[in-house]
Amino acid sequence: MTLTKNEIKFVKSLQIKKYRDNHQRFVVEGEKLISELLSQSTYKIDTLFHTADYSLTSQHSGINHVEISSKDLERISSLKSPNKVLATVKIKARNAVDMHADALILLLDNVKDPGNLGTIIRTAEWFGVTHIVASEQSVDVYNPKTIQSSMGAFYHVNFSYANLNILIPTLKEKEYVIAGASLTGSSIYEAKLAKKTALIMGSESHGISDQILKLVDQELLIPKIGQSESLNVGIATGIFLAEYYRQFTSPQTLS
Amino acid sequence: MTLTKNEIKFVKSLQIKKYRDNHQRFVVEGEKLISELLSQSTYKIDTLFHTADYSLTSQHSGINHVEISSKDLERISSLKSPNKVLATVKIKARNAVDMHADALILLLDNVKDPGNLGTIIRTAEWFGVTHIVASEQSVDVYNPKTIQSSMGAFYHVNFSYANLNILIPTLKEKEYVIAGASLTGSSIYEAKLAKKTALIMGSESHGISDQILKLVDQELLIPKIGQSESLNVGIATGIFLAEYYRQFTSPQTLS
Repeated sequence: MTLTKNEIKFVKSLQIKKYRDNHQRFVVEGEKLISELLSQSTYKIDTLFHTADYSLTSQHSGINHVEISSKDLERISSLKSPNKVLATVKIKARNAVDMHADALILLLDNVKDPGNLGTIIRTAEWFGVTHIVASEQSVDVYNPKTIQSSMGAFYHVNFSYANLNILIPTLKEKEYVIAGASLTGSSIYEAKLAKKTALIMGSESHGISDQILKLVDQELLIPKIGQSESLNVGIATGIFLAEYYRQFTSPQTLS
Repeated sequence: MTLTKNEIKFVKSLQIKKYRDNHQRFVVEGEKLISELLSQSTYKIDTLFHTADYSLTSQHSGINHVEISSKDLERISSLKSPNKVLATVKIKARNAVDMHADALILLLDNVKDPGNLGTIIRTAEWFGVTHIVASEQSVDVYNPKTIQSSMGAFYHVNFSYANLNILIPTLKEKEYVIAGASLTGSSIYEAKLAKKTALIMGSESHGISDQILKLVDQELLIPKIGQSESLNVGIATGIFLAEYYRQFTSPQTLS
């Protein structure tokens, strides 16, 4: 069928946070991400828009689907090269942070770039992080670029937003050590990390905000040899998580 | 002055590799990158295009500069939000790989995404890597997205292209251990790295190509706990380099 102007307008509106909030829907695109959504997540598809060459399988039974032209897929897609299928998906209620787990929680203080956020989610999920909490000024996790760059990892992570000024003292009461990246911190190669760590990563341009930095118990640094002024926040997150994993998950490797 | 159609066409053409090769010019944009180019690099500016609110200082003496309107800057820029200044810069002759240094060399096998390449350069430079060699099928280092996402790190790195099938045997003769990321390798937390390591990172979608993988002496793995299928190549590079640095640059931290 041919989509009406209003239908196109509706799907495209979900590229903007205000409309995602209003309609409680977001968009997932591409064969792989949709297949994983159906097989590995509890997200519910509202409408599946697909071209004639997309294979519907038993995975799709009971799903509201609409065959559209490639032209219409291009009209509703946020990708440069749309890939056969796009779904509008219902936003889920967020889980509360599990503060009883003896594990690392990742806190994001004003991460603004949607692609960086997606990469951070993908990286954190790789290392088994289950809870990520972003400050309320951070980019929206349902931003299309975040969803696409997370490569499906967001299906497996509890992602929520909170006022970190309120959350962090509560985490301290629950015996979390608040660790944060800082250019004046101590080297991650020398720091002994706590099993119950809440790791804060700051914004791309400003790092951790001053107010939050005051709450940090353990300032950490990735030592530098070259002349670059900073590391990408996703890269720094990956290096911190790899170090945490080294200290806790494979204790036999600590000689 | 107002730029002519041909002038606009010339600068815009440098967004495409063929024209960069023809004209031996590439583009650098933004106040910070240009300032660092002038103060920290040996690259020579061909023409500096700037708006009226850009501050020319003693740094700019002897440089061919042209004041243009914001409208014209938008016309020649590859950025969504152009930032006061854009320079066409002369491509430099590439240095040969220094195989006598007792240090890590980074090899890139078909890295295709220009943003990833820029982030890899930024990360490698942070860790003091001085030589990066990419396979000839890799993305062009003078791609505008690579230049911008390297955040000036490319000024400090010797970046060259080579046939890795020929380079790697030569590196082996010079006693480099060829290390490569592989999902079947041994954990980086258990592997003992060699000081003279040539670390190969593969393409975003296919990893290291089969032909190159045969030449790898040491297959390395970043252990995973979660369900993600892969890590971003920039993130993986950062984690490998951090581990190399941990083993060699701060030996006192190895207990």
